[in-house]
Amino acid sequence: MSTETGNVMDIDTVALDEKTNEVVIIDQTLLPGEVKTIRLTSQKQIWDAIYTLQVRGAPAIGVTAGFGIYLAAREIAARSSSFDDFYPEFVKAKEYLDSSRPTAVNLSWALNQMDRVAKACSSRPLPEIVEALHQEAIRIRDEDVNACHKLGEYGLTLVKPGDGLLTHCNAGKLAATRYGMATAPMYLGQEKGYHFHVYCDETRPVLQGARLTAKELMDSGIDTTVICDNMVSSLMKQGKIQAVFVGCDRVAANGDTANKIGTSGVAIIAKYYGVPMYIMAPTSTIDMNTETGSGIRIEQRDPDEVTEMWYKQRMAPEGVGVYNPAFDVTDHDLITAIVTEYGIARAPYTESLKKIMEIKAASQQD
Amino acid sequence: MSTETGNVMDIDTVALDEKTNEVVIIDQTLLPGEVKTIRLTSQKQIWDAIYTLQVRGAPAIGVTAGFGIYLAAREIAARSSSFDDFYPEFVKAKEYLDSSRPTAVNLSWALNQMDRVAKACSSRPLPEIVEALHQEAIRIRDEDVNACHKLGEYGLTLVKPGDGLLTHCNAGKLAATRYGMATAPMYLGQEKGYHFHVYCDETRPVLQGARLTAKELMDSGIDTTVICDNMVSSLMKQGKIQAVFVGCDRVAANGDTANKIGTSGVAIIAKYYGVPMYIMAPTSTIDMNTETGSGIRIEQRDPDEVTEMWYKQRMAPEGVGVYNPAFDVTDHDLITAIVTEYGIARAPYTESLKKIMEIKAASQQD
Repeated sequence: MSTETGNVMDIDTVALDEKTNEVVIIDQTLLPGEVKTIRLTSQKQIWDAIYTLQVRGAPAIGVTAGFGIYLAAREIAARSSSFDDFYPEFVKAKEYLDSSRPTAVNLSWALNQMDRVAKACSSRPLPEIVEALHQEAIRIRDEDVNACHKLGEYGLTLVKPGDGLLTHCNAGKLAATRYGMATAPMYLGQEKGYHFHVYCDETRPVLQGARLTAKELMDSGIDTTVICDNMVSSLMKQGKIQAVFVGCDRVAANGDTANKIGTSGVAIIAKYYGVPMYIMAPTSTIDMNTETGSGIRIEQRDPDEVTEMWYKQRMAPEGVGVYNPAFDVTDHDLITAIVTEYGIARAPYTESLKKIMEIKAASQQD
Repeated sequence: MSTETGNVMDIDTVALDEKTNEVVIIDQTLLPGEVKTIRLTSQKQIWDAIYTLQVRGAPAIGVTAGFGIYLAAREIAARSSSFDDFYPEFVKAKEYLDSSRPTAVNLSWALNQMDRVAKACSSRPLPEIVEALHQEAIRIRDEDVNACHKLGEYGLTLVKPGDGLLTHCNAGKLAATRYGMATAPMYLGQEKGYHFHVYCDETRPVLQGARLTAKELMDSGIDTTVICDNMVSSLMKQGKIQAVFVGCDRVAANGDTANKIGTSGVAIIAKYYGVPMYIMAPTSTIDMNTETGSGIRIEQRDPDEVTEMWYKQRMAPEGVGVYNPAFDVTDHDLITAIVTEYGIARAPYTESLKKIMEIKAASQQD
């Protein structure tokens, strides 16, 4: 499964090798310099890959955890004689994997989903339980692929061929299983010959835009330009950007959106120049229990990310203070639309997001 | 003249050693890791120091060129028998130094100033011409020190003790001879016990904020925090910034201001949050012959600055497009005030800047 072309679009971000029973991921810590897949089987290998950011992006982590707990279940079942033997060890494995990145919502969500399936099958023979978990892990992956494809279809209605598009951070194929979130309309547009010009904020401090988004867009043949985060105003002033597409980590019920640090600044600058700002949000990221952005906790990260750059070499004086929040919140009044797999929400978001979630609930009852 | 303390505030950015007839500068390419002065005597050494950014910042370059052409004149005079012998070689040296950084306005300005002095003294003996050039070079340096001090006094009236201040790039002591432009109110405030909290945008791609501004502020004992350029909105939303002070490369007659890339984005975000945006502009940077910002040519710089970071290691995929303008233009309607050594200009700038230049002309006639 390693690539000879060096093209990340030729390889799944996360895949299950059914023949060898291994999870195969692109090692994202080596990008953009080296495109290499690694194979994971043990619980510890899965845990390490998530913890060290070899796989990152909320949907991709969720899918990895789903495959990972399936492999663990397989191994535990092989040495168990009954569900009562099997289940306590399964829960232990689940909790262990869940501890790899406590802030990633999709990680817990996928593991809990797998747990529900295991419990629902408790009266069936162990091989059948393992197969049910296998199917559920694949379903979680397929659901992500489908949601991203839908985001792309809706997103594509908001732009036209030849547009200049801006994105921030990586809400791309490398953060999901295919299409990505912010990149989904770009890839669908590329298939239709839209010839977009895509600008990627490099996204300090960890440079997901320069290292990851630029790599996957270029590999897909899209015209791709990296900019420093502080060049957005200059670009927009020249009329080079017709729309901004970004992903999100959590959307509050009023539309306030937490996403990678810098997103709110991009939104303010976009509003000043009259450029539409689109949030690409699978419904799994919409949190109707959080009323506004002020209820979203913002993680502060290691100062070394700012002072040492991605490659470890000192960039700022020893001992200097560093402010390094991982995310910021974009006020709903700066957001032109929130694009979900069930349609496009516009202001007032308290109403439109509620309606989206109702459509989702209805579709799942079908 | 090298430092044992490692404190850049203990050493002049640019100095003339009168005993040895050498120009002594802090080698800014080594900051913040190493504080080291280097000694320049030959024209080639001066040229190289400016070209390789060992000395940078428009005022500092002007002062270096003034000292440099004085040393060249000294050497040329020693082997000349008359002004007619001396002058053609003097002009050749001047043009050579002027070619080291063609876009730096102060470089040409200082060299032309020295040329005027040489021509005005043409009938006097060569040793007297050399001494007149010596005095003029010192006067250029002193004028810069005084202008920066005045900027600081005016700037200090715009803030209060304990304020959080933001600056972008390095318009500091390291870009001038003392006080700096954007930093001048910070240093004067520090002398008066104002206890500012200063935030420095790291300022991609060349990181002048993280490497230079953070270093000089810390060395002066000011509470200093480095942020990535995309963190400005997050900081302002929390109410941590009471004013923004930045330098400038050129101010048009209507107040439109060219400064380091990213400045206009900071101004838009500041306006959104109601934070005042101050441009610290010695009158040498005000260009009454350029009507608006659209008349200011913006230099595009080497893509490697974006993709290779400051230390040479690849940060983005090979072959990716890069947009890397060195400056942007901030619309006058985003600027709260333009602070000069002759007073504070406010909108409408076409009138207030004209008045400032009249005050300057009148003061020079005294």
